[in-house]
Amino acid sequence: MAEPVFNRLCLVGIGLIGSSIARVAKKRGDIARTVVATTRRAETLARVRELGIVDVVEDDLGKAVEGCDCVVLCVPVGAYAGVMAQIAPHLAPGCVLTDVGSTKGSVVRDLGPLVPAGVQLVPAHPMAGTEYSGPDAGFAELFEGRYCILTPLPDSDPAAVEKVREMWRRCGSMIETLDPATHDKIVAVVSHLPHLIAFTICGTADDLAEETKEAVLKFAASGFRDFTRIAASDIDMWRDIFLNNREALLEMLARFSEDAHALGRAVRYGQAEFIEDRIRRGRKIRHELIERKQA
Amino acid sequence: MAEPVFNRLCLVGIGLIGSSIARVAKKRGDIARTVVATTRRAETLARVRELGIVDVVEDDLGKAVEGCDCVVLCVPVGAYAGVMAQIAPHLAPGCVLTDVGSTKGSVVRDLGPLVPAGVQLVPAHPMAGTEYSGPDAGFAELFEGRYCILTPLPDSDPAAVEKVREMWRRCGSMIETLDPATHDKIVAVVSHLPHLIAFTICGTADDLAEETKEAVLKFAASGFRDFTRIAASDIDMWRDIFLNNREALLEMLARFSEDAHALGRAVRYGQAEFIEDRIRRGRKIRHELIERKQA
Repeated sequence: MAEPVFNRLCLVGIGLIGSSIARVAKKRGDIARTVVATTRRAETLARVRELGIVDVVEDDLGKAVEGCDCVVLCVPVGAYAGVMAQIAPHLAPGCVLTDVGSTKGSVVRDLGPLVPAGVQLVPAHPMAGTEYSGPDAGFAELFEGRYCILTPLPDSDPAAVEKVREMWRRCGSMIETLDPATHDKIVAVVSHLPHLIAFTICGTADDLAEETKEAVLKFAASGFRDFTRIAASDIDMWRDIFLNNREALLEMLARFSEDAHALGRAVRYGQAEFIEDRIRRGRKIRHELIERKQA
Repeated sequence: MAEPVFNRLCLVGIGLIGSSIARVAKKRGDIARTVVATTRRAETLARVRELGIVDVVEDDLGKAVEGCDCVVLCVPVGAYAGVMAQIAPHLAPGCVLTDVGSTKGSVVRDLGPLVPAGVQLVPAHPMAGTEYSGPDAGFAELFEGRYCILTPLPDSDPAAVEKVREMWRRCGSMIETLDPATHDKIVAVVSHLPHLIAFTICGTADDLAEETKEAVLKFAASGFRDFTRIAASDIDMWRDIFLNNREALLEMLARFSEDAHALGRAVRYGQAEFIEDRIRRGRKIRHELIERKQA
């Protein structure tokens, strides 16, 4: 077995992502010698104790991070500033502070000013997930073959960046580096906007169902079923993502909206070629994904 | 084995749906004594011959339907009027004429005036499909546990309706009856609008990729992957669906658009409760689908 990347790693928050890191760390043994978990809710901590997926369960955030050479924030991005205020005085010099949040501009904005001297901030975003949440939902294979995007700061210590990179490599991820703004734009279109759309169309269908007193849901065809799968995601996490990637999300919503109305207009005026062109484009992208083995 | 529902059944068009009917008919033996297939493209007919999934392959539409007591239109809905002009003179009195189209108002509009005296029109829509098309894509289990909606006309012969119902029952479908307008509204929201959205967002992402020269697709998260699966559907079929369910589709697009902009506005102004409420609604609908075993 290779030397563990870290000596003592603390997971702050232990839902789907946190508990998956815990499980892969336990399975491999070479991510950290000791894994600590802490979170706000006592019931979650009790459940993590029962599951036996970490070495130490600690209910005090400050105590949990003490003596750790790596702290991974796995709470909704809206909770980062509050968590940071509690843990900052307890972070050891040389500690690598990283996270798994789906927005990166907000992380640099919220955490940057609070990082104590000697602590290395290396924001990261493992692009993996399911529609389930909580410590029972995690599994060791969640990150295998999925991208993990790092958005190191210009003054991040290269050794700290390399450690975070190695941690994700051992989780099975493919690692890429982007600046936070580019990251936020890309995830806005490939993930955040699709979720906004999925949440919306479920509501639109529900309104129609109530209005027509017809069982719209009964006839949910395959198209709609896929949308509801996305729409089943965690409430706190997605509220925070929307609020913390506001600019990029609203820009992508505006672009999408223009495009959807252009297609609607073509339907209204019977412009068959325009419609065919749009459908062809969707197929082309599907094929590109299949070629990239991302489908 | 039960008495076959029909003596000689003709499939006009033999793509995903038509070839799936052929396969289940062959497997069971009690749907029709003889199954005939015809379609416009010679290559498709040659492939159907190779596959050996029907009893008779016939390239002349008129000849194909002659002597049949059931004809099932399995071509894109935009081709119905043209097909009907060719087959009408050859339909035997007492023949049951049905279809598998995803729009039903347009079918009644296009076929109704062309149906010869003595021929019974019973429109139907099996709500089943995959993102694949063509005679190789079909399989006998496609309709199992899926809804098939019948939209009989007020003057449809009850015996003809019952035969179509029995055919779909033997295909494994759950059968429901609706009027064409209600059918069209429901499928607009559960299927047609999701497809319009999926085609659109693929284009929006592609534009961004070209513009930023970043590999947007490389990072396609699970949300986007599901959308591209939908977007891989058949071009001719979907162009025709959009153009033939125009009113209902545009109404649902307008409703969805209002709802999406309301959510976008809540993001802009940081209205957390509104956002949470929308996400909660998506989850509720997902749970309803799971309870109905449609998820």
